[in-house]
Amino acid sequence: MIVIMRPEATEADIAAVCQRANEMGLAGHPCYGVQQATISIIGFDESFSPGDFSSLGGVDRVVRVSTPHKLASRQSGLPATAIKIAPGITVGSGLTFVAGPCSVESREHIVHTARLVKAGGASMLRAGAFKPRTSPYQFRGLGEAGLDYLAEAGAAAGLPVVTEVMTPAMVEKVAARADVLQIGTRNMQNYDLLLAVGRTDKPVLLKRGMSATLTEFLLAAEYILSAGNPNVILCERGIRTFETHTRNTLDLSAVPALKTLTHLPVVVDPSHGTGRRELVLPMARAAVACGADGLLVEVHPDPDRSISDAQQAISPEMFAQLVRDCQAIFGALHPENARTTV
Amino acid sequence: MIVIMRPEATEADIAAVCQRANEMGLAGHPCYGVQQATISIIGFDESFSPGDFSSLGGVDRVVRVSTPHKLASRQSGLPATAIKIAPGITVGSGLTFVAGPCSVESREHIVHTARLVKAGGASMLRAGAFKPRTSPYQFRGLGEAGLDYLAEAGAAAGLPVVTEVMTPAMVEKVAARADVLQIGTRNMQNYDLLLAVGRTDKPVLLKRGMSATLTEFLLAAEYILSAGNPNVILCERGIRTFETHTRNTLDLSAVPALKTLTHLPVVVDPSHGTGRRELVLPMARAAVACGADGLLVEVHPDPDRSISDAQQAISPEMFAQLVRDCQAIFGALHPENARTTV
Amino acid sequence: MIVIMRPEATEADIAAVCQRANEMGLAGHPCYGVQQATISIIGFDESFSPGDFSSLGGVDRVVRVSTPHKLASRQSGLPATAIKIAPGITVGSGLTFVAGPCSVESREHIVHTARLVKAGGASMLRAGAFKPRTSPYQFRGLGEAGLDYLAEAGAAAGLPVVTEVMTPAMVEKVAARADVLQIGTRNMQNYDLLLAVGRTDKPVLLKRGMSATLTEFLLAAEYILSAGNPNVILCERGIRTFETHTRNTLDLSAVPALKTLTHLPVVVDPSHGTGRRELVLPMARAAVACGADGLLVEVHPDPDRSISDAQQAISPEMFAQLVRDCQAIFGALHPENARTTV
Amino acid sequence: MIVIMRPEATEADIAAVCQRANEMGLAGHPCYGVQQATISIIGFDESFSPGDFSSLGGVDRVVRVSTPHKLASRQSGLPATAIKIAPGITVGSGLTFVAGPCSVESREHIVHTARLVKAGGASMLRAGAFKPRTSPYQFRGLGEAGLDYLAEAGAAAGLPVVTEVMTPAMVEKVAARADVLQIGTRNMQNYDLLLAVGRTDKPVLLKRGMSATLTEFLLAAEYILSAGNPNVILCERGIRTFETHTRNTLDLSAVPALKTLTHLPVVVDPSHGTGRRELVLPMARAAVACGADGLLVEVHPDPDRSISDAQQAISPEMFAQLVRDCQAIFGALHPENARTTV
Repeated sequence: MIVIMRPEATEADIAAVCQRANEMGLAGHPCYGVQQATISIIGFDESFSPGDFSSLGGVDRVVRVSTPHKLASRQSGLPATAIKIAPGITVGSGLTFVAGPCSVESREHIVHTARLVKAGGASMLRAGAFKPRTSPYQFRGLGEAGLDYLAEAGAAAGLPVVTEVMTPAMVEKVAARADVLQIGTRNMQNYDLLLAVGRTDKPVLLKRGMSATLTEFLLAAEYILSAGNPNVILCERGIRTFETHTRNTLDLSAVPALKTLTHLPVVVDPSHGTGRRELVLPMARAAVACGADGLLVEVHPDPDRSISDAQQAISPEMFAQLVRDCQAIFGALHPENARTTV
Repeated sequence: MIVIMRPEATEADIAAVCQRANEMGLAGHPCYGVQQATISIIGFDESFSPGDFSSLGGVDRVVRVSTPHKLASRQSGLPATAIKIAPGITVGSGLTFVAGPCSVESREHIVHTARLVKAGGASMLRAGAFKPRTSPYQFRGLGEAGLDYLAEAGAAAGLPVVTEVMTPAMVEKVAARADVLQIGTRNMQNYDLLLAVGRTDKPVLLKRGMSATLTEFLLAAEYILSAGNPNVILCERGIRTFETHTRNTLDLSAVPALKTLTHLPVVVDPSHGTGRRELVLPMARAAVACGADGLLVEVHPDPDRSISDAQQAISPEMFAQLVRDCQAIFGALHPENARTTV
Repeated sequence: MIVIMRPEATEADIAAVCQRANEMGLAGHPCYGVQQATISIIGFDESFSPGDFSSLGGVDRVVRVSTPHKLASRQSGLPATAIKIAPGITVGSGLTFVAGPCSVESREHIVHTARLVKAGGASMLRAGAFKPRTSPYQFRGLGEAGLDYLAEAGAAAGLPVVTEVMTPAMVEKVAARADVLQIGTRNMQNYDLLLAVGRTDKPVLLKRGMSATLTEFLLAAEYILSAGNPNVILCERGIRTFETHTRNTLDLSAVPALKTLTHLPVVVDPSHGTGRRELVLPMARAAVACGADGLLVEVHPDPDRSISDAQQAISPEMFAQLVRDCQAIFGALHPENARTTV
Repeated sequence: MIVIMRPEATEADIAAVCQRANEMGLAGHPCYGVQQATISIIGFDESFSPGDFSSLGGVDRVVRVSTPHKLASRQSGLPATAIKIAPGITVGSGLTFVAGPCSVESREHIVHTARLVKAGGASMLRAGAFKPRTSPYQFRGLGEAGLDYLAEAGAAAGLPVVTEVMTPAMVEKVAARADVLQIGTRNMQNYDLLLAVGRTDKPVLLKRGMSATLTEFLLAAEYILSAGNPNVILCERGIRTFETHTRNTLDLSAVPALKTLTHLPVVVDPSHGTGRRELVLPMARAAVACGADGLLVEVHPDPDRSISDAQQAISPEMFAQLVRDCQAIFGALHPENARTTV
């Protein structure tokens, strides 16, 4: 860590910073510039806080040097992580397509939809049984019955299932029936929930908080990793900006940026990321072009009749086109292994 | 709700929108403009979704007309809500000052701090026993022991206590020892938690999510209200913007805006709202000047030694000055009742 | 336009809105909902303002129905616009690659760079002679001499040139030597400048303002179009958000969104959009995958020695790879005409 | 400046950074931490760019230490600047109230309004003769005739006048008739315009760009100061965020933050800052409470009939109330000199 002093800071101020470092078992090394001094604090790690220094006399600000997410970091020397979900389905190797309706609407509906997305090229089935809704008066999902229907639909179609868990008390029940546990954008910093899924042996699909920086996103993953679960899939799903034409602003630059920062696989959700059906297909293509390991897409047999998020659901036909286009791009960029994906 | 059609929409498109309305038990009334038609949907309420219409053929977009938060809304005709916390302490009547350290650091520390903030003019004591931290490697509070110390400190100083609850499973335990339950910014859309505190009889201090719109903020309050708890205190604590000089951007215009939208009391947290000690006092004054019912302030006997958030904690002396300044402003704006506030 | 009344609005309030409409030569048609009334204003166009109604008694808010950008809009029935820059170089037909250094550094430098980018696949040369810089103490370009060097370099390499014009007084001089006039992000709402370039016969490359909505972006284009110049190329170059890992957040969803809103061609600048060299190539690929008509890329013979924006410049070798990758994606998505692009 | 190396950086990388510093006439001092090295670059100033180092091998990132705005900075040791506009009217001493309509609507109108705002307590008159409008089809002001009417109205009422100048070519004409030149939010980074007003001897009211950081705001002021004009008044007028309830988000924390960063006076525009009439008065009070030197307010004799910005204009009666409230707050906070302000 580096403490930047103000130009008017005195020698006594500099000495006080070094003394505070000593009290904490660290060492402070001043360096004198033309205008002002800086002090390198050696030995600083995550159990300390920049606030330990930032309010001392003469201090202008404090700059962190080392990365705060040890386990999630590329710096830790691990190769890129590939996460095996089921025989033949590995996130982080080729392209993974996760598709399905926003919510489980009925037993028949999800069984039917599962078959359609399988036929269109999906490798996993997604649907919500517990739905976080902005208003308490909106449909919040079928709950545990929905979980059963989803598991049945996945089994019938031969697709592993991904579904959201919203509270620590439900983690065990959801883990018993799902292949991948999803943490939604509103819960990215629900730390008890992160620790709870971190204690299971199921892979976790972690959605980026709608106003989370990449550092905060990786620290949320670090919670799960540090609890013992090494299988975290990061999901970019759009961030909140001033633009209102789209529901969120899909931050695709997060994909290659995360690839340089972490060894974890990264998938993209162009459905929530745009909130507009006509943008799902082009943004799915773009996600693959910039290096995403897969896509999470809302698909509904009759999109206009979707109980929730109708405006962003695509039809099974559009989904099949999406898979074809994405495979074509992946193939053009990786001619050597285009054949082996799906 | 109003459905705005595209200029090129056909009569059949318009008829299809009206038919969809009929199927849902609603009525559609078209109106033909110079360029395009609009269709008013009569009878639309919160159990429906704009998405039911937005993806039909020829539809440009859908505009909600009625307010989605019935219980929190000023439109419901209720007078402004004042929430009695303890004898002589009512949020929404005069100014309420909630003060204390970021976290309970030890039994002695919180007992000592409680006396200091009481002397400075505080009407309630705040401190965290369970701390949400961005990194899993940072201090996360003393937990249940911290709760006990906090309750003891409040009792000794004669101050009701406010503390954060982070998970539904802990609501009962926290409610047994705290006078007001705080929901933190990261949990504003943790719906199971909102419903859990909504089922208690303790007042809830609900912090605005760091990227929540005012509508989303009021819908989060609506979750609590709709679960049966009428005592919700809203807290503006800064939103996330592009500006990095401050930790957050304190959105003080939210105070008078909320006053026109809801009957609930509104307090302001200038400590998290700015993240900088030197800005706490001026922004506290500004909050009172634009109509806040109270302030939530981080105060530490030795701010530079605060275990967490040191850069934004103020000293007891600064806090006493803050109370004096805020009372002076309140008095200047309300000469009739300046006398009666604490 | 639609005026949404408050639930408590009276008949007199509604009548007053209709009367205001009549005074303006418009007509108001009320529609009564369960909770509140709405009033459609027929005949409203761009010479009026929503503010004419929004502050009348009982009015909750006003919603615009028709699009405010007539000439830029897809609704106007025009086919997609393709802009011919030079023989064989048309923006909006196949992919256009505009490449070059951030600024003209010297005569030799720009002549050398022009040859390198031409060899790498560029169809146009870009470089700044007048540079907008955040600080008055930074290098602001070679000025008119830079313009001459740039024109000479383009002629020598057989590449049309694009360069920024910053003030109305310079438009004529820049137009005399450049093939395309660039309006920078800071000047997107410099209306005198927009009108000045709108009066020339040179195509204009208009960069999106760093906090401009798509509507504002298209209204800026409308200024140019309405002044008589039909040849506007829109350029997405990143927007300002809370994320600090990247210099800006490249909003690629703007590309397919603009394609539905306007007939004008859209190019992407992944250099400024990310501000990081390692992200330029993946985001260029993504831009093509979601439908961009071309790319604007900062290329420097020795990127680390670039006088300005060194951290985002790529080498000629990386640029050649970028062109190959983008062509491969374009070809995979448009097998019929992959052959015809440059 | 400090160069932070990656953990895997080699000794050769570190040597290369130091050598680059030497080539530039600077000195590099490495410091070795537990995880990685940092290198202090001594002698770095504004004519260099962080990009000179950020793309070298092994470099993680570069942190600026010294402030980039020398003339605007508090560090330069100047006392707070007070700007004398006319006899008895000094911005930066007591409170200054600048009031008037959005635009000059007619000769009679502005003369009448000037008298009303003078009676309400205004110390300066504001109105636009040249109006920047988002759409080319909206009213853009009366132009030079408007300038004449404004000057006449100010003279008749005994109020100095403030008005916007939008292009360098008009600076001389506007300066001939206005007492203060306003630079609008869209032109905060129109550098030719900043330099042009910097060459006049008229005080400049510089509005913050709608997505400008405080550093960028001060660098824009630096352009004016460095051109020779020492009289710059900074104006916070709201920034662009995700919140749509208000037109902008008024960032009042900018006021006390700027007071620590610069010696220049700071005023606040609560009209554009909120865009809603009912929020103007509370936010004006808040601005004074946190230290603003004055207010810029849109006042119209018949606000609902305002040609532009009707929804944010207040009546002369509301303005008089605003002045009384703000004076009461100023008096409560500065009992010693409450008497001397207008």
